[in-house]
Amino acid sequence: MTQIRIAIAGYGNLGRGTEAAIKKSPDMRLVGVFSRRDPASVSLIDSTVPVYSMDDIEQYQNDIDVLILCGGSKSDLPEQGPYLASLFNIVDSFDTHAKIPEYFSALDTPAQKAGKLALLSVGWDPGLFSLNRLFGEAILPQGETYTFWGKGLSQGHSDAVRRIEGVKSGVQYTLPSESAMARVRNGELPQLETREKHTRECFIVLADGADADTVRNTIVTMPDYFADYDTTVNFIDQQTFEAEHSSMPHGGFVIRSGESGADNTSQVLEFSLKLGSNPEFTASVLVAYARAVHKLTQNGETGARTVFDIAPGLLSPKTPAQLRKEML
Amino acid sequence: MTQIRIAIAGYGNLGRGTEAAIKKSPDMRLVGVFSRRDPASVSLIDSTVPVYSMDDIEQYQNDIDVLILCGGSKSDLPEQGPYLASLFNIVDSFDTHAKIPEYFSALDTPAQKAGKLALLSVGWDPGLFSLNRLFGEAILPQGETYTFWGKGLSQGHSDAVRRIEGVKSGVQYTLPSESAMARVRNGELPQLETREKHTRECFIVLADGADADTVRNTIVTMPDYFADYDTTVNFIDQQTFEAEHSSMPHGGFVIRSGESGADNTSQVLEFSLKLGSNPEFTASVLVAYARAVHKLTQNGETGARTVFDIAPGLLSPKTPAQLRKEML
Repeated sequence: MTQIRIAIAGYGNLGRGTEAAIKKSPDMRLVGVFSRRDPASVSLIDSTVPVYSMDDIEQYQNDIDVLILCGGSKSDLPEQGPYLASLFNIVDSFDTHAKIPEYFSALDTPAQKAGKLALLSVGWDPGLFSLNRLFGEAILPQGETYTFWGKGLSQGHSDAVRRIEGVKSGVQYTLPSESAMARVRNGELPQLETREKHTRECFIVLADGADADTVRNTIVTMPDYFADYDTTVNFIDQQTFEAEHSSMPHGGFVIRSGESGADNTSQVLEFSLKLGSNPEFTASVLVAYARAVHKLTQNGETGARTVFDIAPGLLSPKTPAQLRKEML
Repeated sequence: MTQIRIAIAGYGNLGRGTEAAIKKSPDMRLVGVFSRRDPASVSLIDSTVPVYSMDDIEQYQNDIDVLILCGGSKSDLPEQGPYLASLFNIVDSFDTHAKIPEYFSALDTPAQKAGKLALLSVGWDPGLFSLNRLFGEAILPQGETYTFWGKGLSQGHSDAVRRIEGVKSGVQYTLPSESAMARVRNGELPQLETREKHTRECFIVLADGADADTVRNTIVTMPDYFADYDTTVNFIDQQTFEAEHSSMPHGGFVIRSGESGADNTSQVLEFSLKLGSNPEFTASVLVAYARAVHKLTQNGETGARTVFDIAPGLLSPKTPAQLRKEML
């Protein structure tokens, strides 16, 4: 079997997760990692894989079937994506929801021109959650879709608590509200604001001499971030913090509560994720979709695509006949 | 907007659910129902829709964009499918898992020859559950997939309890085992037989003079059906039976428990359905996929397909640009 030749552009948490996910896919081979840092300073899981400078990436056009972009959505991808789509078949996890149409166009033009395929916004939200929102609405047009996030580490809110005087270390988790979820699952079709759907929980290590009540009060009354939410603040010691709060869990729920038939019978679809590591899971989704990109390029497809355009069977290393026999 | 012209072949519970689902889809129009019964004896939800004899279906080739087959998998579809695939673009819910490859071939040849598209085995299992099994395995190749069914009415087991002497009325529900599900969700990767994953619950109305303990004992010791399962038997009166046990609920869970990264971090995907009516939900899935079939035929695609071959965006009445803006 000829392995699909994959490369990674950008080596942070997502790039590292991607390297690990490729290792678990026998039909693929990681041919290299590209970084803007000094290649000698980048340490991979597998030290036999070469690290190259991003500046030299044009030289490797004939060596890479699919390039997985592992940069951030804020500044990396808007800058790198259109350029790299003119050189390679690419997959990325662009996740600034409001800017997806604009970014789609920015990739579509160079990809079309170069005869390449560019698959954007792959991961779980956008990604698998989007697919489940679509399935729910298309199958049960009469109904409501609810997305709950968590339990998950929120980077922005964790940064906010860490800026408070008296906080030595801190993390914030967003949790789906159990009572709101129960109402949705029950087919009540409630109208819910984001803050009614979620609660917030903080784990804080106090700085020497800091007052717990003062810190707690500063957190729970912080406008925009916490004031509108049901927020719990827990104080722990540094050792517990390091042992229990250094991973990056996330997840959430997409629930479609709809009605069918002449008598409007209740029907509920639910998709959920409980992720031990957010970046490693996003990476796993990227790698499966890289396989789909490779198959589509074999059929000569070009231009920009999203997960909505990809037939699910393309994600699997199995043949269509195998899938029908084993998985249908 | 030109509506998609849909017709239904076979009008039992599934056909009736399909009629209702089409009514909730403004981009579609039900142009007729075909039945093997005397058309005058078939009573639709909407009495303005014409009912025709199945014998005359060939005459309507120019009036139907997609024909939805609502017959049973045991004898109707194997007989009707290949014939109708030579005349129409079709969708069906063939659900005899072991015979899918054979049935696929039986549709593929006539559909190819006639330039038609035939989409088979659409519904929730096979169907949405199959898609979730595929996503789970493709994204997390290292892991296990678990399918649990229920809470659902089991026709075969209900028939079995009704044959017992002393049973006036009876139904049987299959339930997923909460303890087995908890182990799976917890990432324990247990090895589980079907009987370890499910429990059974019966609701029985006793015939006059029948002894409850004798009936209960006959049920829980019945080989193949109940003896290997944890079975609960409840005795109720006829009025309660009719009020609470005449609908056709079903559902279930597909859980992928996998591992990612260099340290094998636990990642769990879960998809579940809680269906007030099994046939109405299957019908809703059929109707969404009928839309996809219509779009694919516009692009000239022919031959047999399964849900694995269908890009999810095709299920929605929205344009690709709308989907990217609103649903990604």
